[in-house]
Amino acid sequence: MSKHAIRNGQLIAEDEALVPVTSREVQSAFYVYEALRVIARHVVHLPDHLRRLESSAAQIGLKLPEAANWQSWIDALVEADGLVDATMRICVYGGREPLAFITWQELLSYPDSYYSDGVAVTSYTGERFLPQCKTGNLLLSYLALEDAHRQGAFEALLVDRRGRITEGTRSNFYVIKDGRLYTAPDEDVLSGVTRISVLRAASQLGLEVVYEAPLLDDVRRCGGTMFLSSTSMGAMPVTRLDGQLVPCDTALTASICSLVRAWEAD
Amino acid sequence: MSKHAIRNGQLIAEDEALVPVTSREVQSAFYVYEALRVIARHVVHLPDHLRRLESSAAQIGLKLPEAANWQSWIDALVEADGLVDATMRICVYGGREPLAFITWQELLSYPDSYYSDGVAVTSYTGERFLPQCKTGNLLLSYLALEDAHRQGAFEALLVDRRGRITEGTRSNFYVIKDGRLYTAPDEDVLSGVTRISVLRAASQLGLEVVYEAPLLDDVRRCGGTMFLSSTSMGAMPVTRLDGQLVPCDTALTASICSLVRAWEAD
Repeated sequence: MSKHAIRNGQLIAEDEALVPVTSREVQSAFYVYEALRVIARHVVHLPDHLRRLESSAAQIGLKLPEAANWQSWIDALVEADGLVDATMRICVYGGREPLAFITWQELLSYPDSYYSDGVAVTSYTGERFLPQCKTGNLLLSYLALEDAHRQGAFEALLVDRRGRITEGTRSNFYVIKDGRLYTAPDEDVLSGVTRISVLRAASQLGLEVVYEAPLLDDVRRCGGTMFLSSTSMGAMPVTRLDGQLVPCDTALTASICSLVRAWEAD
Repeated sequence: MSKHAIRNGQLIAEDEALVPVTSREVQSAFYVYEALRVIARHVVHLPDHLRRLESSAAQIGLKLPEAANWQSWIDALVEADGLVDATMRICVYGGREPLAFITWQELLSYPDSYYSDGVAVTSYTGERFLPQCKTGNLLLSYLALEDAHRQGAFEALLVDRRGRITEGTRSNFYVIKDGRLYTAPDEDVLSGVTRISVLRAASQLGLEVVYEAPLLDDVRRCGGTMFLSSTSMGAMPVTRLDGQLVPCDTALTASICSLVRAWEAD
């Protein structure tokens, strides 16, 4: 089966989802994007993703296509390729004539063992420019994740100049300790769509949410249950940090993950 | 006449110089680039540009195409499109199969009045990630330059968290005062190919080169002859900063520019 994509509302062959290297916006990666989860032909939390797309675009002065009808464009792609479960990506390049693409790939999902045994992460010093924006300015994230992969880890945690862990390269980050869940303040990180559900789940489980980015040194010294969240990961426990085993209450992260996934069907 | 481009050594139509939005390297703007000046069918300072391209690539772990033969690829494009004077761009996307493009446009040049009367610049707070690398991580530069253009200015100067002017979005920056030329240290800025010539010219004209990034506040208060340099600009005087007129010895910047351009023929 040949895959399709959407370009400004038109159904095209996926291999025509191309951009010119001579365009200033392409050269500057002046684009915003969202990664979506399609489950049973339905995009999970689409209004949240579209709100964030609009917010990212507004923050960098990028005009979205005026006639965008995301729901119907998505439906057309789901229909054309007979999608049931998939990971979908919206990206919009700015400029005088904005160029919006919707593409898809097989549903990003992870082995059960990642959830029962936890994953390994590394730390990487760096601060995202405009952290609340989901844009193509991704070199730091790319390099940090490459570094993690070279060390056999699943994700890299970004550490700011004050030694605080803000977020992962494609995830939000949390530490649970003594009945409290610590995570970076909203203004310092990408406002993850799944993060909203995680914080709701934490409250429901009786945890107090504290908006303080955990210090890498504290985490190394004092531990706590660490986990990541993202659209694809749900809530994923961390059991290794920079090669060192760290204790983790995976039953607790599993409870959070169950709630997060249950609400996706709402 | 239909324009051409080079993709990994192959001559293609320019409108085929495209990259897929589904590629992780394209999404992350994981690429390095150079802007070249072709004068009388000859690329100015090509070895310097290629050295910097290799340095940018090495710093981010991007593998250039092994079989790259830039000189012959450039010659093929010059020949195919009958180029005499032009601005040329090399860009190389990384990944398992690096994708190198050479494209061109009309020679970027500026009215004589820019050199005799000077140009307007604005200041913009922000620090480039990996400042010595010429990569696609350009959102800050894009936003700063858009901001300058909205204010009717020609270029934006980037100001770091300590209030120092490091460089322009596509230029290096200098202030001359009391026989000294001040400019940011090499490690904080892109090592401009034209910057090398500017520093050589300054020495030849009896100026002492001081590697200190000028403070924005000092420049506002105490003035000095400000100018920019880049491959396209040569040395260009600045006579307006954030809307305020600033005095400038344009005869001195013209002397520097003449030397810089004269050495291009070497």
